[in-house]
Amino acid sequence: MQAEQHLPFELPPVTFYPGPSKVYLQLSRYMQDAFTQGILSINHRSATFMEICRKAIEHTQAKLNLPDGYKVLFVSSATESWEIIAQSLIGRKSFHLYNGAFGQKWMEYTQKIHPASNGFQFDVNQALSPDDIQVPADAECIALTQNETSNGTQVSNAIITQFKQKYPHMLVAVDATSSLGGIKLDFIAADIWFASVQKCLGLPAGLGLLIVSPRAMERAREIGDNTYYNSLLFMAENIEKYQTHYTPNVLNIYLLMRVMEEVEDISIIDKRTRQQAHAWYHFFEKYTSVSPIVTNTAVRSDTVIAIGADKQQIAFIKERTKQAGIIIGNGYGSWKETSFRIANFPAISLQEIQDLQHCLAGVL
Amino acid sequence: MQAEQHLPFELPPVTFYPGPSKVYLQLSRYMQDAFTQGILSINHRSATFMEICRKAIEHTQAKLNLPDGYKVLFVSSATESWEIIAQSLIGRKSFHLYNGAFGQKWMEYTQKIHPASNGFQFDVNQALSPDDIQVPADAECIALTQNETSNGTQVSNAIITQFKQKYPHMLVAVDATSSLGGIKLDFIAADIWFASVQKCLGLPAGLGLLIVSPRAMERAREIGDNTYYNSLLFMAENIEKYQTHYTPNVLNIYLLMRVMEEVEDISIIDKRTRQQAHAWYHFFEKYTSVSPIVTNTAVRSDTVIAIGADKQQIAFIKERTKQAGIIIGNGYGSWKETSFRIANFPAISLQEIQDLQHCLAGVL
Repeated sequence: MQAEQHLPFELPPVTFYPGPSKVYLQLSRYMQDAFTQGILSINHRSATFMEICRKAIEHTQAKLNLPDGYKVLFVSSATESWEIIAQSLIGRKSFHLYNGAFGQKWMEYTQKIHPASNGFQFDVNQALSPDDIQVPADAECIALTQNETSNGTQVSNAIITQFKQKYPHMLVAVDATSSLGGIKLDFIAADIWFASVQKCLGLPAGLGLLIVSPRAMERAREIGDNTYYNSLLFMAENIEKYQTHYTPNVLNIYLLMRVMEEVEDISIIDKRTRQQAHAWYHFFEKYTSVSPIVTNTAVRSDTVIAIGADKQQIAFIKERTKQAGIIIGNGYGSWKETSFRIANFPAISLQEIQDLQHCLAGVL
Repeated sequence: MQAEQHLPFELPPVTFYPGPSKVYLQLSRYMQDAFTQGILSINHRSATFMEICRKAIEHTQAKLNLPDGYKVLFVSSATESWEIIAQSLIGRKSFHLYNGAFGQKWMEYTQKIHPASNGFQFDVNQALSPDDIQVPADAECIALTQNETSNGTQVSNAIITQFKQKYPHMLVAVDATSSLGGIKLDFIAADIWFASVQKCLGLPAGLGLLIVSPRAMERAREIGDNTYYNSLLFMAENIEKYQTHYTPNVLNIYLLMRVMEEVEDISIIDKRTRQQAHAWYHFFEKYTSVSPIVTNTAVRSDTVIAIGADKQQIAFIKERTKQAGIIIGNGYGSWKETSFRIANFPAISLQEIQDLQHCLAGVL
């Protein structure tokens, strides 16, 4: 996105938290536009809303290069997507590949609805391969976390494609919460993708995107779930009219429309994200007191940089960055006190990155 | 609320739509505060968020005079509340009293989950009475729509209390979507209340409030539902820590905190709402070409004024108000073309009401 020309009077604190995360500075202006244009009060069945909804979807489809026929649906959070997938796209059993807290939670939330679901836990340094893993023949859906926010690992497009090719009769569902909009995803390689807007899309929390292929919709029709207000078939029926299955977060859909209209094509963003990720890992190589949690460079995340050190060092780093007015992410789960995380999301400016690196250089 | 001192540069169009509806003008400033203070990026497990969440809840409890022990929970919409109640607070069967589209939808959404649920449809001009209605002995929950947005009727606190007294072993659940924050509700008379913030609370859409009594929580523990991400027990466990069961609409919770801090006590708002409702009905009495849908004055809503007329007249009124830059609500369902609706919500100013009355006086 172009640098904001009409800078707001006062800027928010600098944050590298990996979600909710830094929002585009343009939001100050977009929110005022929403206020003065009465967007905060429009009816969600009105022509004005339907137009905003249509544009938000079409800009998203265009900028992310979604394949033809892939639907974009609005949900309240990525967590809700776990439930919708379990209820509407899995009849009895899914198989989960996970190496961290969010992938594991996805499996556990699904098991409450489908107790037969199970999974395979792999090491943070292991590159997944369909050659090493036998997905049970009775699984209907393979669930993968493309970017595991808790430990800073990612699964490549190539690997997702390999699973899809080895198991063509199964659906492949991908959690891209912390990567969608930050790196180029090969959407054709899976049937279900979901993400939250408060990560790589630079928007405030309170809206999730659920993206489904024509094949996923076909499967939804076979399963025929119509029990819930957020049953996929009912959601899809509403979005055909550019409406939603509930009174949605209209403001955030409007902000998504504005942001997706302005951002560059994902191929340009992807290049910058990967270069910056490379620069971040290179930066930390210079210091012996810290190192990325993940030693296998092939599986390191491009959007969430997780750096480990001993407890005292981590506390010291967090204290110093805080003094410098910069928020960095805490570690997660078992890494809570022995790591910190840095978002490498598109809304973060080069100046902010340089400021953080300058601050860290004085500590490490 | 006090008149906004720092008026935004440009004001939104005047709207009387009964939801999403007019927001407080203060929101222009509150949203900028949220931006500059970095609220749009705060982590939803952080101390900062927990403090905002706590204050939002405590101001709501105080200003609405909630009884001790009543929990305030955050959901994405009132529709989601229907589902949470069905899943976590009804074991097998609820009984629904309804006279309009939203009450009926609530029953139908519940029947998908509990096919044994049924209900009693009453006329828009009928004042409900437990003497006239036999609730089936095996119903666990009586579901009432306190304010039916589709036709402009309401059920009084006294009647809700009578049902509670006649059926003390059942839960009473009340949809107060279009009245909570606008009139004084006798919360002790029911176990479950829910509403959306885009009605009488003057906030943008994208957040609902679910209010539950200690007795409702006891029933939730008996039923023991823990299957869903929005199972009530899990939601309650999170809100104990002033956190939520999903990444919530943080901005709207912040705005709720700001608004509930500033609004007057519900007893003062209630008095003004009822006086203004009386004035509205009195205003329309002067004209023979229009009349309230509801002829029984005892059941007319104080917050949603539904006015009927013939099709041509309605079209003419809508055209003229639109020309005057004022948005009024369409009719709903079978009244779509033969009525219009006017929100009588606290955020609407006396000046705006006078402007609309002036405009209508020239048409009627």
